[in-house]
Amino acid sequence: MNTGPARGMRDFLPEDVRRRQYVIGVIADVYERYGFEPLETPAVENIETLLGKYGEEGDRLIFKILKRGEGAEPGQADLALRYDLTVPLARVVAEYRAKLPKFFRRYQVQPVWRADRPQKGRFREFYQCDVDAIGSGSMVVEAELLQAAGDVLARLGFTAYTLRLNHRGVLAGLLDAGGVPEALHNDALVALDKLDKLGADGVATELDARGVPQAGARRLLEFFGAVASAAARPGGDAASVNDEVLARLQALLADGRAEALAELRRVVELVGATPAGRHLRVDPSLARGLSYYTGSIFEIAVPGLAGSLGGGGRYDNLIGMFLGEPVPACGISLGLERMLVVMGERQMFPAGLEARAADVMVTIWNLDTVPDALQLAAELRSNGLRVEVYPEADKIGKQFKYAASRRVPFVTVVGDEEAAQDLVTVKSLTSGEQQRVPRRDAGATIRAALTEE
Amino acid sequence: MNTGPARGMRDFLPEDVRRRQYVIGVIADVYERYGFEPLETPAVENIETLLGKYGEEGDRLIFKILKRGEGAEPGQADLALRYDLTVPLARVVAEYRAKLPKFFRRYQVQPVWRADRPQKGRFREFYQCDVDAIGSGSMVVEAELLQAAGDVLARLGFTAYTLRLNHRGVLAGLLDAGGVPEALHNDALVALDKLDKLGADGVATELDARGVPQAGARRLLEFFGAVASAAARPGGDAASVNDEVLARLQALLADGRAEALAELRRVVELVGATPAGRHLRVDPSLARGLSYYTGSIFEIAVPGLAGSLGGGGRYDNLIGMFLGEPVPACGISLGLERMLVVMGERQMFPAGLEARAADVMVTIWNLDTVPDALQLAAELRSNGLRVEVYPEADKIGKQFKYAASRRVPFVTVVGDEEAAQDLVTVKSLTSGEQQRVPRRDAGATIRAALTEE
Repeated sequence: MNTGPARGMRDFLPEDVRRRQYVIGVIADVYERYGFEPLETPAVENIETLLGKYGEEGDRLIFKILKRGEGAEPGQADLALRYDLTVPLARVVAEYRAKLPKFFRRYQVQPVWRADRPQKGRFREFYQCDVDAIGSGSMVVEAELLQAAGDVLARLGFTAYTLRLNHRGVLAGLLDAGGVPEALHNDALVALDKLDKLGADGVATELDARGVPQAGARRLLEFFGAVASAAARPGGDAASVNDEVLARLQALLADGRAEALAELRRVVELVGATPAGRHLRVDPSLARGLSYYTGSIFEIAVPGLAGSLGGGGRYDNLIGMFLGEPVPACGISLGLERMLVVMGERQMFPAGLEARAADVMVTIWNLDTVPDALQLAAELRSNGLRVEVYPEADKIGKQFKYAASRRVPFVTVVGDEEAAQDLVTVKSLTSGEQQRVPRRDAGATIRAALTEE
Repeated sequence: MNTGPARGMRDFLPEDVRRRQYVIGVIADVYERYGFEPLETPAVENIETLLGKYGEEGDRLIFKILKRGEGAEPGQADLALRYDLTVPLARVVAEYRAKLPKFFRRYQVQPVWRADRPQKGRFREFYQCDVDAIGSGSMVVEAELLQAAGDVLARLGFTAYTLRLNHRGVLAGLLDAGGVPEALHNDALVALDKLDKLGADGVATELDARGVPQAGARRLLEFFGAVASAAARPGGDAASVNDEVLARLQALLADGRAEALAELRRVVELVGATPAGRHLRVDPSLARGLSYYTGSIFEIAVPGLAGSLGGGGRYDNLIGMFLGEPVPACGISLGLERMLVVMGERQMFPAGLEARAADVMVTIWNLDTVPDALQLAAELRSNGLRVEVYPEADKIGKQFKYAASRRVPFVTVVGDEEAAQDLVTVKSLTSGEQQRVPRRDAGATIRAALTEE
């Protein structure tokens, strides 16, 4: 019998869960500090809620659930597994609009499912960490989202990270300036999105294949190259580089793009006033894959990692698909799975997270003293300790070995002598030292020793 | 467009999530203190892993996922949604046996899905909180599981709860003693399981309908009645009542059931040595519905609630279905959803849990001062405060109203005067009082005021 998890899915053993909980805990804590509130939606949605929201490719990758009961036609699906956290958010905003605050700021950390071909680092069940602010078109939203994402990264130990920022309106203006016909804008964005991966030559080929005039493509790529050089110039601080890039954009864009450029400039100004400012980089070549973005777009990069640790942007029309009226919205999704991989490779998890089942294991002296062992365990727990009781009256050496294999740092022994004098022997499995202490002091002794460690 | 969640599923808005997280947090904390470790398994399992494990009724209620891709026949399902947390645990133990400790003690808090007809309090997506100890047949396991469940209830504020305890072997002995043929034991258990709901007369009718000889059924029900009377006698403490019940069982059971009775007695002895002892009640009529139990069974009751807050037992053969060899196992599942309902009705949630988006809202004086407002918010956050920034330059009164509607207790204002003198006005929205403080003291001022509240 196959006892593995389903293809592309993972079991998380205790050590895995602890690492995941640590990262999710930091994310939640940071977002709570920004006044974002937790939301959870069901894993299963009505199939119509999801179909048609993610493009043709997306529709194919949705896990569909067989309809049950008498009215069901064979093979008919009425439900589907959550594919992302944005569409459920849009549905929730439409459903509970009257109950929700005008500016609804929520974070959501839940799994999503995609019937993608599994490969290294790509799973069919994976967590998304989304944070979105609904109801305001102000660039304060963008600034706070970028700041908060920066705080998350800093708290997790990513000291050098870049918050890449662009604006879909600015990008459209650049395509105009490059002579790309509007009908080809979407194709051009899809090609540009691969700049990191394919380089300028590769993107030039892609643009050509999609019918973008070569002269225009060349001008665009030259512009991006010049901007990248400016950003890479040694000694330039974030603010002066961003100012230079904004000035170049100003020179290139038509007047019709003034509002988009002003929004971009405003985000730079607002984030510049905060500690995240020095990580911000205006990157006019940033395209983002999804078609629903309407304004700012962002992506988070860390040195030495191809691809991003997260990204997002403004999508003022998506909620309207559910609500019938447009509602301004902007969000960032952090790539939890990728963060976990990078943090594992770079040994960024705090030392205390390593699997340690308990602080102390209570050994069993013999069958008669088991009730007393359980009583001792209860006493130690009331000292705030995590206490495991060895369940059987095995030889004491075997019990010590078991505790050591579980990396439990202390064991207690109450043998006949200790019992007669109301004492407990506390043994450190790391140093091998042991001491007899009055039973009522056993908890405090272990607590003190744990703090010293 | 339908914007509600799918039938029988629920959206959890922030206040709901906070209540759920509170209860789950207490459960996890208690189990960690007992040395249990967290496990998570995928929502989706191979369909063969689940089919045939839950009986015919269970198979019908499993949500099945359509097979994708070219080889799939129309309507074919290859995957299914997790139906409980026990079967995935059994699979995990079989898969990772060599990696896991000999005594694997895990807790798991995750949703499961059942295509049941939704009704009040019954959902198609609901959380289970399972805690199981694998690898030991010692009654220390039972004792610790009951203790831990008691600790959870006590921490959540359930002062009067009962840990009902029985043993499948004892129950079988009672059925023997009542003259129920072994072939009818399972039928009799199903009928007995309804004793709470139907009363003695109802169960007698059920037993009769299932072919259990009437004289035997009467003797059984009389015995249960006598035990219930003993338990209800005023002034009897848990220990003496349990001793009396054990003595009655001893008198009634054949010698072949001595081991089962000894196990029951041992659990009473072990739990009796701990604070949970006074909540324990041996209840020979407790049957539990599931067929896989092999030894101890338990159920948690609280006064004024029909049905239970959780239950479980020993199931020494289930893991063998995956591993090929029997592994002793015992567990309790807490009914999270029911706990939440009862705690809501009885107002048992701590006051601090009520929706409060942030500790303080930073208002926006005018568009020019937005960068400074973001800077102030960052300063307050570095004081550990949860800070929301009003995103737009609306009239200040409108901003105050918004903060009040969000139950944010404090707002800050930095107008032209304050800015000129490096001051911040801190206003309490509960008392209406306001004070101007030096900007560097604003965070400490709010923190102190929050502690006073």
